[in-house]
Amino acid sequence: MTVTKYPAKQHWAKVAKNLGLTEGLVYLKGDVLKERHDTDVELTFRQESNFYYLTGFAEHDAHVLFNLKTQKMTLVPYKLPDDHIVWMGMPPTFEELHNKYEADDIRWSIDLLAAVNESGASTLYVLRQEDAPAGVNLTINADVLRDAIVTARMYKSPFEIEAMRKINHISSNAHVALMKAAKNTHSEIELDALFRYETARFGARAQAYEPIVGVGANAATLHYGRNSASFNGNRDQLCLVDAGAEQGCYASDITRTFPLSGKYTGDAKTVYEIVLRMQKAVLEALKPGVQWEDMHRLASTVAVEGLLKAGVLKSEFTVEELLQKHVDGVFFPHGLGHMIGLDVHDVGGYPKGVERIQAPGLRYLRMRRALEPGFVVTVEPGVYFVKFILDAARNDAEISKYIHWDVADRFSKVGGVRIEDCVVITETGIDNLTIAPKEIAEIEAIMA
Amino acid sequence: MTVTKYPAKQHWAKVAKNLGLTEGLVYLKGDVLKERHDTDVELTFRQESNFYYLTGFAEHDAHVLFNLKTQKMTLVPYKLPDDHIVWMGMPPTFEELHNKYEADDIRWSIDLLAAVNESGASTLYVLRQEDAPAGVNLTINADVLRDAIVTARMYKSPFEIEAMRKINHISSNAHVALMKAAKNTHSEIELDALFRYETARFGARAQAYEPIVGVGANAATLHYGRNSASFNGNRDQLCLVDAGAEQGCYASDITRTFPLSGKYTGDAKTVYEIVLRMQKAVLEALKPGVQWEDMHRLASTVAVEGLLKAGVLKSEFTVEELLQKHVDGVFFPHGLGHMIGLDVHDVGGYPKGVERIQAPGLRYLRMRRALEPGFVVTVEPGVYFVKFILDAARNDAEISKYIHWDVADRFSKVGGVRIEDCVVITETGIDNLTIAPKEIAEIEAIMA
Repeated sequence: MTVTKYPAKQHWAKVAKNLGLTEGLVYLKGDVLKERHDTDVELTFRQESNFYYLTGFAEHDAHVLFNLKTQKMTLVPYKLPDDHIVWMGMPPTFEELHNKYEADDIRWSIDLLAAVNESGASTLYVLRQEDAPAGVNLTINADVLRDAIVTARMYKSPFEIEAMRKINHISSNAHVALMKAAKNTHSEIELDALFRYETARFGARAQAYEPIVGVGANAATLHYGRNSASFNGNRDQLCLVDAGAEQGCYASDITRTFPLSGKYTGDAKTVYEIVLRMQKAVLEALKPGVQWEDMHRLASTVAVEGLLKAGVLKSEFTVEELLQKHVDGVFFPHGLGHMIGLDVHDVGGYPKGVERIQAPGLRYLRMRRALEPGFVVTVEPGVYFVKFILDAARNDAEISKYIHWDVADRFSKVGGVRIEDCVVITETGIDNLTIAPKEIAEIEAIMA
Repeated sequence: MTVTKYPAKQHWAKVAKNLGLTEGLVYLKGDVLKERHDTDVELTFRQESNFYYLTGFAEHDAHVLFNLKTQKMTLVPYKLPDDHIVWMGMPPTFEELHNKYEADDIRWSIDLLAAVNESGASTLYVLRQEDAPAGVNLTINADVLRDAIVTARMYKSPFEIEAMRKINHISSNAHVALMKAAKNTHSEIELDALFRYETARFGARAQAYEPIVGVGANAATLHYGRNSASFNGNRDQLCLVDAGAEQGCYASDITRTFPLSGKYTGDAKTVYEIVLRMQKAVLEALKPGVQWEDMHRLASTVAVEGLLKAGVLKSEFTVEELLQKHVDGVFFPHGLGHMIGLDVHDVGGYPKGVERIQAPGLRYLRMRRALEPGFVVTVEPGVYFVKFILDAARNDAEISKYIHWDVADRFSKVGGVRIEDCVVITETGIDNLTIAPKEIAEIEAIMA
C-alpha cells in the first residue's frame, strides 16, 4: 500500500521562504495531553494547528525542529514510559515513524534539548516566548515565525485541498442523511446525534465546531448550540443545520436549511429563495482579485431586493438608500464567510493594519482582503428574523420607517435561513467542495 | 410540569456539616469557556464537577457562594453582553433561574465582588488559593474545603443514584445496540460511532471518557483508544467495548466483551467464563464493611483457579502459591474498579494516609478503603494476554515456571476480556445500575 504522507516538508519550504532567513532553528511545540480540571479524565486530544501543518503528526506532547541552514526537519515524538505500554500499547519504532511521516530525522522527546543545542544554530525561532524549551543556549526570537506560518497557511496546497474535499464530502453526505431522516425524528437532539454519527462512522470522529441544529425561531439565534428542542409535532417549521466534521485536522463547515414537512411553502419558501439567490450571486462573482467585503455587499444587495419584493421592506425606498442606511444588517446581521482550513475560522482573514468596518453586518466580517488562488473560504449568507434585532429596529426611528412591520412580524415565524458552502478560489473562479444539495426541488426529492 | 431541581442545597448542607464551621463564606468558581489554542474554536464546555455538585448549574463562567452562618446559597451566573444576544440568544431571567435551580439568591457575575464583600463574613473558603476573586477583603482559606466536598461526594444522594441509574441504562442499551449491529459492521470505527450515537440521541451528548473499542489483540491494550482497526473479515475475534456516556455531568462506565461471530467458542469462551465468575464472585461478596483490596484479591483468586483449570497455569502449584508470587498480575494487571460519580474515576478512593500496595495489579487499585452505603463503584475484572507483560514474565525465572507457555501462547489469540458494571453499595449488598446483559446465552441470543 502506498502511503501518501502529509506534505510537511513542502509546508516547511513555504514557511522558510516567508521567513527569508538562511540560518537559525525553528521550534514548534505540539499540544500536550490534558486532563479535565483536577481529575484524571483525559480530554480528547487535538493537535495544535500550526504544529500539524508542519508535521502531519497528531500525537500528544511532541515537538518539531527545522534547521533553516540545512533545511532538515526533525520530528521529536514523546515516548511513553515502559510502564504505560500495558495501558497504551507499544510505541512506534523510528522505522514505522519514518514510513508514515516526512521527517529527515527523528529523536525522542527526552533528547529534545540535545537536538536543539547540537543544531549549530544561534537563534531559535518560536511562536511564543514561553514555548522555548528550558535550558536552550540559543537566542529566542518570537517575533517573526507566526506571520510566516500564517502566510503559508492562507494558500492551501493540493494535498490540503483534497483533504478538505474529502471531509466536505463526508459532511455533505451527513447533511443529506439528516434530510432523509428528518420526517422520522422528533427533536434537535436526534438530528445533532445523527450528524455526529454519519460523520464519525466514516472516520471523522471530531467536529470542526459544535453543530448548530435549530428549528423555527431557534434558527434565528446565530450560534444556537443547545440543540435540545422537541419539534412538538409542529412540522410546519424550517430546520437550520450548521455542522461540519473534521478529519486529519482539516475542517468542513456547511449549512443547510430544510423544512421538517419536506416541502418549502409560503413565507419560508420566499426567504429560502432569497438566501439561495444571495449565495448564487456571490459564488458566480468569486474569483481572484475580488474584495471580500464587496462580496458581502453583493449578498446584502440581493437580500434587500428580495425583501423589497416580499413586502418586508417598503417599496417606496430604493435599494441604494436601504443599503446606505444598513437596513440589510437587520436581516443579515453576520459576515458573509471566512477562511477555513486547519481551523474552521482559519488564519489570515485580515492583513496587517486592516481594521473592521463599523457597520451592521459588515462589523462581523471575519475577512477583509482581495481573494487569491488557493484560498478556501465559506460562503454563508443568511436572512433571519431575530426578535432582539427587530425590537431594536422597531424602536429606532431611522430604521423603523423602512420596514412593513405587519409583514416582518408575519415572517418572524420563519426564524431564519442560512446556506453555506466551502469553496476553493481557483485561477478563474471557484471549486466548490460542498456537494450537499441546496435547490428546493433537490431537497424536496430527497425528503419525499 | 414539575421540575425536579438538582439538590444543591442538600449537598451544601453535607459540605457545611463536614466543614464544621458556623460562619464564613464558601466560594466556588465554575469553569470558564475555553477556546482551542490561539483560535476562536470554542471547546465543548463541561462544568467543573465540584461546582456542579453544589449548583446543578452547567453554564460557563458562573460562580457560587454559600454563607455558613445564614446557610444561604447565592448563584452567580455570567450575563452575556447585549451584543452577544444575537449570537447566543436571550439570557434567562432571575425568575427562570429560580424556577430551575435551588438558589436562595441570584446575582449576575458583574456583582460577584459586591456579593462577597456584603456577606459580612471574615473568611472566604476556596478550593485553590488562586480561585479567590481579585479584590476581596476577606481572609482566604484554601485548606479545608476540598476534604469537606470530597467526603460529601463519596456518599451519593438518592437524586444522584437515580441520575446514575438513568445514564447507566442509556449506556447499557447502547451496548446492546452494538451487540445487535456487530454482525453488519466492519471496523472498530463504526462501533465507536454507533455507541456515541446510541447515547447522544437520548440526550447524553458527552462521553464520561473516550470509548475503548478493541478487537482481538487490541483488547489487551488496556486503555486502547484508537478504535480504528478494520475487522478484515476475521469474525473469529472478541470485541471489547468499554464505554459509558454522561448526562447531567453524571458518569457511567460499562464494559462488555462479545464475539464478532455471535458465538463464544473455544479459548475465548473459556476466558470469558473465568472473567464472568470473577465478577459474580465479587458482586455477591460486596457489602458495607468489605475492604476493596480484598475484593480485588477475591477476583484474583477466581482468575487463578480458572487459569489453572484451563491449563495456562501449571497444576502442580497451589492457588495460594500462585497468588503469593503475584502470577495473577500477569493476566489481571489492573485494579478491580473505582468510585464513580460526577467523574468516571470519582473522588474519595484513598483515605488520607493510605498508600498504594506495591504489587502487580494491586498497584493500580484506584481505591483502598472499606465500603459504605451510598458509594457507587465499578466492578471490572479482566483477564488479558498482553504481549509486553507475557514477554517480561517469560524472561523472569521466578514467574515463568508457573506458566504453561504453549497454552498461554495459544490463548494469546483471545486478546482480553473485561466485564464491568456500576453498582451502588446498599445497607445489605448492592444495587446494580448496569442492565446490559453479560450471560453467554443472553448475548448470543441478542446477536443471533
